[in-house]
Amino acid sequence: MTRSSVPAPVTAVMEAAGAWLPVRMAEVEERLTAQTVGHGPRLGEEAEATLAAGGKRLRPLLVLMAAGNSAPERAVRAATAVELVHMATLVHDDVLDGAPVRRGRPTVFARSGRGRALAVGDLLLSRAFAELAVPGAEAEIAELSSASVALALGELAQRRDAFDTTISETRYLERCSLKTARLFESACRVGRLASGAPGTEELAAFGRDIGLAFQLLDDVLDVTGPPERTGKARGTDLLDGTVTLPLILARRVDPALEGVELRGLDQTAAEAICDRIADSGALEEVRARARDGTERAKRILVADAFTDEECHLLGLIADGVVDRYS
Amino acid sequence: MTRSSVPAPVTAVMEAAGAWLPVRMAEVEERLTAQTVGHGPRLGEEAEATLAAGGKRLRPLLVLMAAGNSAPERAVRAATAVELVHMATLVHDDVLDGAPVRRGRPTVFARSGRGRALAVGDLLLSRAFAELAVPGAEAEIAELSSASVALALGELAQRRDAFDTTISETRYLERCSLKTARLFESACRVGRLASGAPGTEELAAFGRDIGLAFQLLDDVLDVTGPPERTGKARGTDLLDGTVTLPLILARRVDPALEGVELRGLDQTAAEAICDRIADSGALEEVRARARDGTERAKRILVADAFTDEECHLLGLIADGVVDRYS
Repeated sequence: MTRSSVPAPVTAVMEAAGAWLPVRMAEVEERLTAQTVGHGPRLGEEAEATLAAGGKRLRPLLVLMAAGNSAPERAVRAATAVELVHMATLVHDDVLDGAPVRRGRPTVFARSGRGRALAVGDLLLSRAFAELAVPGAEAEIAELSSASVALALGELAQRRDAFDTTISETRYLERCSLKTARLFESACRVGRLASGAPGTEELAAFGRDIGLAFQLLDDVLDVTGPPERTGKARGTDLLDGTVTLPLILARRVDPALEGVELRGLDQTAAEAICDRIADSGALEEVRARARDGTERAKRILVADAFTDEECHLLGLIADGVVDRYS
Repeated sequence: MTRSSVPAPVTAVMEAAGAWLPVRMAEVEERLTAQTVGHGPRLGEEAEATLAAGGKRLRPLLVLMAAGNSAPERAVRAATAVELVHMATLVHDDVLDGAPVRRGRPTVFARSGRGRALAVGDLLLSRAFAELAVPGAEAEIAELSSASVALALGELAQRRDAFDTTISETRYLERCSLKTARLFESACRVGRLASGAPGTEELAAFGRDIGLAFQLLDDVLDVTGPPERTGKARGTDLLDGTVTLPLILARRVDPALEGVELRGLDQTAAEAICDRIADSGALEEVRARARDGTERAKRILVADAFTDEECHLLGLIADGVVDRYS
């Protein structure tokens, strides 16, 4: 249950949208770079690893898409803030997981150690709120704070559930909601709030659905690999003690998976469990649920509040979440 | 160079001020409690250790004092937010230091492990900004974000300087500024901003000066103890590799301290270094500097922007910072 270890469907949307989207995304990138270069040599050393942590910028893209083609500066700030929260969480996650590499580059933790990585994460989280410190943005601040709290609660839940192979599907879904779907939801919500256009709650539901689908498919990829594509070994979640939906569904039909012990697992044993999960048919079911989720998300957008262009572009993102993983 | 390991001079000010101050402080305490009980059983277990982390609430007291006796709800929120940032930092510091106890109680780290403590710190930091998400408070948000970034940069600086016994006084003072004085400054500034009264910059300078004095005296106490009073063993900073002003000044007059090796130090050796530092006369010099700082702070307040009551009460805090340690 790592997050966004796979490139997001940014390219298709960037090509389909008008020039406004690449322009705004470039502004977001500039603002992100400014976060890590504006604090002297101390942080400069960490800058590359930190900026790389977020990856393909799916969340800021959602913010801008939700704001629409007249996205004001406030939306660019909100997009930057959402990505900063995401980056902060990844930098802290890498500390906890002792992760050496993210997206083919050394993590801040690996480059500079636990202490510096913890401080860099705190710094990014603090900077997120500075981005939103503009008149009238109090709803966005409250929203992003709430999402950031959800991420922390999700981390707490994941720690508590670690190595417990009996956790329920409900509990798993609650964790996905906190760790992934909530920030997707927030991305959509703060974008729409910044634009002042109607349809905020519909977009929030859209974000929640595709965020959940994103996480479901990420959890499938942890089982299937291949490592060249996912950037991590198969069964990494199992090795971390993180029980995800593929195992939860597979254990219902394969008694050998029922009482499996994850503590002390090695890579070979983890891959053997991945194979059993794949043989159970669970992966197809998880993929089908993710597809149902993105279809439901697209149906939400068919409302008076959205232009045809918005429906088209947001639909491309929803499809992209599924297509990247099929 | 731990922070606020010693009770702050809250009582004298609470007694001297009108009823408004205890009432407002009780509101802050209620808001702080709400942070840790409103998130279900996950966080409930951590609540006690987390709430205890902040200690005597010196920073929220400064916020309210800076706001004055007509302190609006915005000031109470700002006071809560400042304390939440402080608590978040302490919880994260305890993770890095592997600290078992703070203020006589087990730390979040000791009770629940690194992962949960990291998440609890993130949660507290995120909640701080939610407290400030009210119309018109964008200046306070920017200010607190900036202070929080300074804390993270201070942590980075401390990590980088660890075990380097050659660091300069300038570098030490810069670190104090980031790790301690900046949040004292912010406490004063956000309080005054919330009240709308003039004198924000004077109060910011006041906060900076007493924050630095506070840190200088904390660093003296690390050398002198006694442990019953400080709640930690003598020489804890030395054992952590943190070089502070007492050693920096002492090494100028005691050649044996010049090339001292802090790596691999044990408690007995650390206490022996403490004794040498004390014998050098450095502690008297650090105390004198702290006193100069608080006197300078009090002089700043003699301006048209402040009432006699404000000068009196803030002066009590400044004196208290010195008296507690003399």
